[in-house]
Amino acid sequence: MENKNKYYDIAERIYDLDGEVYECVGSSLGRTFTGDKRTCVDSLVKLMRTKPQGHLLRSELALISNMARTIRKDEDRSRLMRKYDEILKEIAELPAGFGKVEILDENRAKLNTSNLRQKFSKDDHLIICIGRTHGSAGNDIGFALADALRINYYDAEIFNEVLRRLDAEKDSVVDVADLGTNEIENKYQGSGRTLKERLKDFDRYHGLTKEDAIFFNQSDLICKRAKEEDFIVMGRCADVILANNHIPHISIFITAPFEQRVHRVMEVNNLDHKKAERLLKKIDHQHSKYYNFYTGLKWGDAVNYDICFNSASYGIEESVEIIERMLNQHTNA
Amino acid sequence: MENKNKYYDIAERIYDLDGEVYECVGSSLGRTFTGDKRTCVDSLVKLMRTKPQGHLLRSELALISNMARTIRKDEDRSRLMRKYDEILKEIAELPAGFGKVEILDENRAKLNTSNLRQKFSKDDHLIICIGRTHGSAGNDIGFALADALRINYYDAEIFNEVLRRLDAEKDSVVDVADLGTNEIENKYQGSGRTLKERLKDFDRYHGLTKEDAIFFNQSDLICKRAKEEDFIVMGRCADVILANNHIPHISIFITAPFEQRVHRVMEVNNLDHKKAERLLKKIDHQHSKYYNFYTGLKWGDAVNYDICFNSASYGIEESVEIIERMLNQHTNA
Repeated sequence: MENKNKYYDIAERIYDLDGEVYECVGSSLGRTFTGDKRTCVDSLVKLMRTKPQGHLLRSELALISNMARTIRKDEDRSRLMRKYDEILKEIAELPAGFGKVEILDENRAKLNTSNLRQKFSKDDHLIICIGRTHGSAGNDIGFALADALRINYYDAEIFNEVLRRLDAEKDSVVDVADLGTNEIENKYQGSGRTLKERLKDFDRYHGLTKEDAIFFNQSDLICKRAKEEDFIVMGRCADVILANNHIPHISIFITAPFEQRVHRVMEVNNLDHKKAERLLKKIDHQHSKYYNFYTGLKWGDAVNYDICFNSASYGIEESVEIIERMLNQHTNA
Repeated sequence: MENKNKYYDIAERIYDLDGEVYECVGSSLGRTFTGDKRTCVDSLVKLMRTKPQGHLLRSELALISNMARTIRKDEDRSRLMRKYDEILKEIAELPAGFGKVEILDENRAKLNTSNLRQKFSKDDHLIICIGRTHGSAGNDIGFALADALRINYYDAEIFNEVLRRLDAEKDSVVDVADLGTNEIENKYQGSGRTLKERLKDFDRYHGLTKEDAIFFNQSDLICKRAKEEDFIVMGRCADVILANNHIPHISIFITAPFEQRVHRVMEVNNLDHKKAERLLKKIDHQHSKYYNFYTGLKWGDAVNYDICFNSASYGIEESVEIIERMLNQHTNA
């Protein structure tokens, strides 16, 4: 059918469907199209042909189907819903049909493990990158998720150990979260280093700052591991590192309202409200600076992750379950 | 067992497990605990008893289990993983065990339909509130999701119609997204009203501004519908309105990177880059102002929603599927 006729055909069927639905509902709320058929059909055709109005046409159709769903008689309801489905399908196939213009970023999707429509090679591993605000229980969720999925869990402390073991680097990775609390074990070097020490470092890291050297060592390790095994990695800008290296993963950011986090930090770290607030702001600020420095992106901004979770809405156990469901890994066993 | 002895018992078992894992792996990477048993056990007990270090203990354990999973011999691997699981379970039961301090906000969770652990009354409906940045295909996703779930879909245009039909209000609800584009049908009143007209409105809406009156009428309608049926509602601050009225729902925010959205708007609205950028910023700003004005909250901030999605990572169809999986409503049929 020629396109112009196609538009008129669909418009007439929409108009007629509205009339039929109205009759079956017998509602006092009236029809969607109250004008004469000619005028309404012309106006529908206009909507269909003009892309910016795609959403108005959608609204008109939703009005009709919302109404059709209230039809009491099963037979009538399914007959009219079938008609509605057919119309919807034909509109979707029009050049200017709504839902036609994709938002999918092929590059992003290709690297997104939780986009199940994308095909991955069997060599790809399940890698879950978790960013989190302090106090949101993001670490607890990550650890419990790794345990549930039976995959490895990496955080700053573990990278520290692994790098130490690999003897590639004797120096520690320090998660800023660790710096905020009073540690009983001071495993790490103090930051008050002398000029001589810093010059020694400069030499040792081939001109890089110690922080940069550690970052690059970690990045290497993350990419290497990603080729060998499934794992969960907390922070470390792993999402951006993996994306830059074209390694599929899913990036999740976990957060919760500030007040909720303050209360959790008060309990976990045994601090008063004021101190907990200060600690939280400090650690968030450091994470933010770190992420921004190494990625050029805004930490915690939803556009930089595949998914953001509010852990206050789910709690630790349910957060684990919802991520499993998303990944289609959840079993009720 | 007395708590102190319990700590020592667990610490010793962790130390021994590390040794056993090391033997089975036969790796050159060394053990997690390299000191003598007494010192290591003492230090583990310290970690267990001091809350702020919960995450360090977790990291030590993760190191051991990461290693244990690499054991080749099935029998050894499952034997040691069983031991690991037992230790983990006992730690979780300690007063200072990690994962002990919840982040769950009972009030939020109670109102969150996608928190499947919470029990809802059978009278509660599935209500999905979707906020979205302009150009993120949020409307397309919402509409397709309503269609997939066979539930009603409400947007500004539909509220307009419904309110008109109910004759409660002759005035239109105008979604700011509509104002940005050149409409072929100008269904709405212009905003350049005379003083006389505005005074008439003032009278008519009992001293409220027209915008406020519309907002309150909509809010009423949303709450009424929420008691009667399942639906998806786009924008309208519906998440906050429902939360304030203690009606369970799920709140989702859909967004995508700015550049991605600009390109989509260019295609949908047939605009050049500069104009698309301007339109997008304007509409986002208006949505943001509207949400902030009526809720006092920051629009698009992940802490104000249950979940945020990056539609560029999923595209329209897969976004629908992932939301269905989250809600446990997805069938492969």
